Amino acid sequence: MSYNLLKGKKGLIFGALNEQSIAWKVAERAYEEGATFVLTNTAVSMRMGTIGQLAEKCGTIVVPADATSVEDIERLFDKTLEFHGGKFDFILHSIGMSPNVRKGRTYDDLDYGYLQKTLDISALSFHKIIQVARKKDALNEWGSIVALSYIAAQRTLYGYNDMADAKALLESIARSFGYIYGREKKIRINTVSQSPTPTTAGSGVMGLDGLMDFADRMSPLGNATALDCADYVLTLFSDLTRKVTMQNLYHDGGFSSMGMSARAMSVYNKNLELEYRDVKNR
Amino acid sequence: MSYNLLKGKKGLIFGALNEQSIAWKVAERAYEEGATFVLTNTAVSMRMGTIGQLAEKCGTIVVPADATSVEDIERLFDKTLEFHGGKFDFILHSIGMSPNVRKGRTYDDLDYGYLQKTLDISALSFHKIIQVARKKDALNEWGSIVALSYIAAQRTLYGYNDMADAKALLESIARSFGYIYGREKKIRINTVSQSPTPTTAGSGVMGLDGLMDFADRMSPLGNATALDCADYVLTLFSDLTRKVTMQNLYHDGGFSSMGMSARAMSVYNKNLELEYRDVKNR
Amino acid sequence: MSYNLLKGKKGLIFGALNEQSIAWKVAERAYEEGATFVLTNTAVSMRMGTIGQLAEKCGTIVVPADATSVEDIERLFDKTLEFHGGKFDFILHSIGMSPNVRKGRTYDDLDYGYLQKTLDISALSFHKIIQVARKKDALNEWGSIVALSYIAAQRTLYGYNDMADAKALLESIARSFGYIYGREKKIRINTVSQSPTPTTAGSGVMGLDGLMDFADRMSPLGNATALDCADYVLTLFSDLTRKVTMQNLYHDGGFSSMGMSARAMSVYNKNLELEYRDVKNR
Amino acid sequence: MSYNLLKGKKGLIFGALNEQSIAWKVAERAYEEGATFVLTNTAVSMRMGTIGQLAEKCGTIVVPADATSVEDIERLFDKTLEFHGGKFDFILHSIGMSPNVRKGRTYDDLDYGYLQKTLDISALSFHKIIQVARKKDALNEWGSIVALSYIAAQRTLYGYNDMADAKALLESIARSFGYIYGREKKIRINTVSQSPTPTTAGSGVMGLDGLMDFADRMSPLGNATALDCADYVLTLFSDLTRKVTMQNLYHDGGFSSMGMSARAMSVYNKNLELEYRDVKNR
Repeated sequence: MSYNLLKGKKGLIFGALNEQSIAWKVAERAYEEGATFVLTNTAVSMRMGTIGQLAEKCGTIVVPADATSVEDIERLFDKTLEFHGGKFDFILHSIGMSPNVRKGRTYDDLDYGYLQKTLDISALSFHKIIQVARKKDALNEWGSIVALSYIAAQRTLYGYNDMADAKALLESIARSFGYIYGREKKIRINTVSQSPTPTTAGSGVMGLDGLMDFADRMSPLGNATALDCADYVLTLFSDLTRKVTMQNLYHDGGFSSMGMSARAMSVYNKNLELEYRDVKNR
Repeated sequence: MSYNLLKGKKGLIFGALNEQSIAWKVAERAYEEGATFVLTNTAVSMRMGTIGQLAEKCGTIVVPADATSVEDIERLFDKTLEFHGGKFDFILHSIGMSPNVRKGRTYDDLDYGYLQKTLDISALSFHKIIQVARKKDALNEWGSIVALSYIAAQRTLYGYNDMADAKALLESIARSFGYIYGREKKIRINTVSQSPTPTTAGSGVMGLDGLMDFADRMSPLGNATALDCADYVLTLFSDLTRKVTMQNLYHDGGFSSMGMSARAMSVYNKNLELEYRDVKNR
Repeated sequence: MSYNLLKGKKGLIFGALNEQSIAWKVAERAYEEGATFVLTNTAVSMRMGTIGQLAEKCGTIVVPADATSVEDIERLFDKTLEFHGGKFDFILHSIGMSPNVRKGRTYDDLDYGYLQKTLDISALSFHKIIQVARKKDALNEWGSIVALSYIAAQRTLYGYNDMADAKALLESIARSFGYIYGREKKIRINTVSQSPTPTTAGSGVMGLDGLMDFADRMSPLGNATALDCADYVLTLFSDLTRKVTMQNLYHDGGFSSMGMSARAMSVYNKNLELEYRDVKNR
Repeated sequence: MSYNLLKGKKGLIFGALNEQSIAWKVAERAYEEGATFVLTNTAVSMRMGTIGQLAEKCGTIVVPADATSVEDIERLFDKTLEFHGGKFDFILHSIGMSPNVRKGRTYDDLDYGYLQKTLDISALSFHKIIQVARKKDALNEWGSIVALSYIAAQRTLYGYNDMADAKALLESIARSFGYIYGREKKIRINTVSQSPTPTTAGSGVMGLDGLMDFADRMSPLGNATALDCADYVLTLFSDLTRKVTMQNLYHDGGFSSMGMSARAMSVYNKNLELEYRDVKNR
C-alpha cells in the first residue's frame, strides 16, 4: 500500500545494516512512498551486513562514512547533494553502539575511553551530521531530521548501561539544534523513542528477551515493530507534520504511559506466589 | 493536495463551529483525504455557527448532541453507526468551555458549580464519548481517538484559569482509557497539545493576543495554525501511527521545548531597557 | 530525634484516620519538630478511626469538616485561626476516595455521579481549601501547602481507576493555585508523589499487594513508608525549601525514574521461564 | 539560625570559587548545620578565587583536584577519607564550564574538541567522582550525592549552547548511577535544577541579565538565590529525604511550571505595543 506520501522527497539514511534494522525498514517504506535517498553506513557495517541489496532494491547508492568523522560526513554530504542534484529533505539517524556494553564493562566500572566512544558514535554523530548539513546548507526549507531513541533516556533499565546517557544526550541535541535550525531554515528535528526492537544493535543488551516480553505485556498495543516504526517515521518526514519539532515522540504501544498493566502483573504475581510458597515450605 | 491517507476511513467529529475551528479544518482535510464522517455539535453551537455549510461541502450530516449527556451521546452513536452502515474508525474531540472564564471569575474566586461545568464540558465529555463508544463496540480495531489539548495542562498561563485543570484531566482520561481500549480493541487514544489558535473558543481567554505573539516568537517554527493542526491530526487517524497511544503530542512549532528564544527575548529586553531608563531618569 | 525544624510553625492537617495514615505520621513528626496544628477529618472518619488519640498525644483539637463543603471549610478555618490566635503556616491535604473503586465500577463502566464525587473529594477539595485560605488571608507569608499524590497521575496502573484522573487534577490545581498564591503571598504549593503505602485508603485498590512488591523491587531504595513520607513533608513545611513551588515531587525510592530493575526482572523472568516450559511440555 | 540538621555528617564539596558560588553557600550553611567537609577545586580556580578563606572559616582543608582526572579524584578521596577518619556522607558537585561558550563558538559551529571538554568537565566528572566513591566504598549507607543543574537540560535557552547538552547528560548520569548505588549501598543521587544565579560561572552566558529578569518575573516566588539553594541542598543531605533519589528537583521559585505570568507578560506586551505603534506610524 502506498500513499505517495513522500513523492518528490529526497533524503539520506544512516544505519541500515540488515533486514532487522529499523533504518532498513524506513528505507523500504520511504521508497514505496515515492522518496529517493542515499544510504550510508560504516565500511565495516557494509561488509557485515547486506546494505548493498537494499540499495539495489531502492535504486540508490551506498556511501561509506564514519559518522563520528566530520571529514567523512562532509564527503558524504557532497556525494548526496550530487546524487540528488541539489538540496534534500530528510535525514534519518539510526546509530548507536557502546563499547562498554560490548566488552562487559558495567556502569560502575566504565572505561572512560569507551564511554567517550559511546557518546561520540551514538549522540555526537548526530550533532556533527546536522552541523555539516547546516554549513553546507544541504536541506530544503521544511526539511525533517529524525533520530531513533529509547526510553532509557528518561528511565533507568537494568543492563542498558551508558547507552542510556548517550540517548539522553542525543535527545538534548535534537532540542538544542532544533531551535537553531528551525528558526533559520524551518528544519524540524525530532527523536522517536521506539519499543525495544530485536535488531542486531539491540542484541548486545543484557536480558533483552525478558525485557521485550515485559514491555510487550505492559503496552496495551504491544511492542511496536521495526516496520511500525518505519511507518511512523514516514509521517515525520512528510509535509503533514511540519510544525512538530524538538520533540521526543514515544512510539511504543503505550509503554511510556504505563505504570503497571494487568497482563504484566499476572506474570509477575504468579511467580511471586511461587516464591512465597517456597518460603513457607522451607 | 491529497494522499488518500484516510481512504475508506469513517469517523465522527465533535466541535466544528465555524471556519476558524480546528475541528472544521480537520473535517475539510479528512474529506480531502478520502474519509467520510458525521459532524456533531450542540444545538446552540449549530445555530451560532455555520456547521451546516461544512456538512454540505463534505457530503455529510450534522447530528446535534450535548457531549455532557450520555443519552445524547448514545443517540449520536446510533445515528453515526447507521450513517456509516456499521463500525467506524476515528473520533475527534475538540470541545472546551469555562463558565468561570466567561463570567470573569478568577481562579482564586471560582464558582464551584461553574467549575464542575468546565470539567464536564471540557474533559468528562471525553470519557463519556469513549465509554459509549466501547459499550456500543462502535469502533473498528486499530481505530484512533484524538482530543485537542493545550500546554496549560503542564504549565500555568496567566488567565487560562480552570481550563488548565480541565486540560490536565482530559489528558489523564486519554491515558487511563487508552490503556483499557488499547488492550481490548487496539484502539489508540492521544491528545494533541496545539499552539494557541485564534478560534472562537480561544477568544474568551484574557490577553490572548500578547500570548500568541510571545508563543510565536518563542517557537522556532512559529505557531501552528488550525490547518497545520488538521494535517497533523490526519496522520494520527491514519494507519501509519498505529502504535502511538496514551501520548500527549505537542504540535506547537517547538514552543514546549523552549526556555527562551532570541526573538522573544529581544522584544522583552527592548522594553526592559526602556523601563530601566525611566527609573534612571526619575 | 528532633531538629526543632518546625519550631513556632502552626498548621492544619487533613486526613489522619488511624496509625497507618500518612497524615497521622506527619502530625506525629510535626509535633516532635515543634509545630502546633489543628487536626480535621469527616465526622464519619472520626468515628471509624482513632484520631482523638492522636489529638491528645499532640495536645490539640480535632475539628470535624467535610472537605467538599465550602461552608464546613470556612468554619474549620475560623476555628483553626482561633486555635492559633492568628494566621498559620502550613496545610496538609491527604484526602482521596473513589466511590467507583469502592463499588467495583471499572473504568469503562464508570458511574458519572460517582466520578464527580471522586473528583470532588480527592481533588476539588484541595482547591476549596486553598480558596478559603486565601479569602480569609489565613496563611503567613512563606507558608507551605502540600497534598499527597501518586504516580498514577502520569502513568496508568491497572485497577487504580478514576483515582488516576483525580490525582492528575489535584496536581494541576497545585500548579494553578501555586502561581496565584505564590505571587501574592509567597505561599508555596506542592504535591508529593508517594510510593504505594499500605493505608486504609489504599486498601480498596485492586491487587495492591502485588503492586507494592513490584514497586519495592523496582525502586533502588525500596518503597518509601508513611514515616519516611512524613519526614519528607516536614522539609517542605520548613523554611529550608522556600523557593520550591508548583512541583510534583516523587518520594518513592527512585521508582518514577526506573524502567526496569534487575530485582523486579528476576521475579518476572523466573515465571516467564515456567510459562515457556509449560507451553513446551504441552 | 541552625537546626543541627547535619550534625555528625561528613562531606566533600566540589566547586566553591568565591562568595557568589552556590558551593560556597552550601559549605557555609552545612558548617552552620553541624557538618564537617573537605573542599576541593582545580588548582587554577584556587588561585583565581578565595576558597582558602572559606576553608579557614569552616575549619577545614582544600584539596586541589581536576575533576576530569580519575587519578586526581582518587587522591582526593584518599585525603578526604583520611580527613574524616573513615567513610563520609555527602558529596556536592557544582562544576560546569564550556570552552565553546568562552570562545564564542555558537551551537551551529561547535568545536568538537571543546565539546568533549564541556561534557567531560560538566557531566562526565560526575560519573568519575561517583565511580571512584563506589570503588573505594567511601560513603556511608544512606549517603547523599547532589549535582547542580539547570532547566536548559529540558528546554532550549538562547545562548546556553552546549551547556544544555552537558546538563542533560549530567541528569542522566544521576539516574543511571542512582539506580546502582541505591540498590547496593542505599546512596541517593539527585540533581537540583536551580534558577539562573549570578555566579562567576554563569556570567559567561550571553544575555544573562535579561534572562534573569524574565525568569524572576515568570516565577511566582522570584528567582531562588544561591543561599536559598544552599538551604535546599541541606535538606537533601539530611536524614529527612532518604527515599528521594534519581530525581531532578526544580528549585526555581516555580519557573519550571510556568507557561506565562502576568508580570512577565506586561513587560513583553508594553514593548509589543511600542513596536506595533512604530509600524503604524511608518
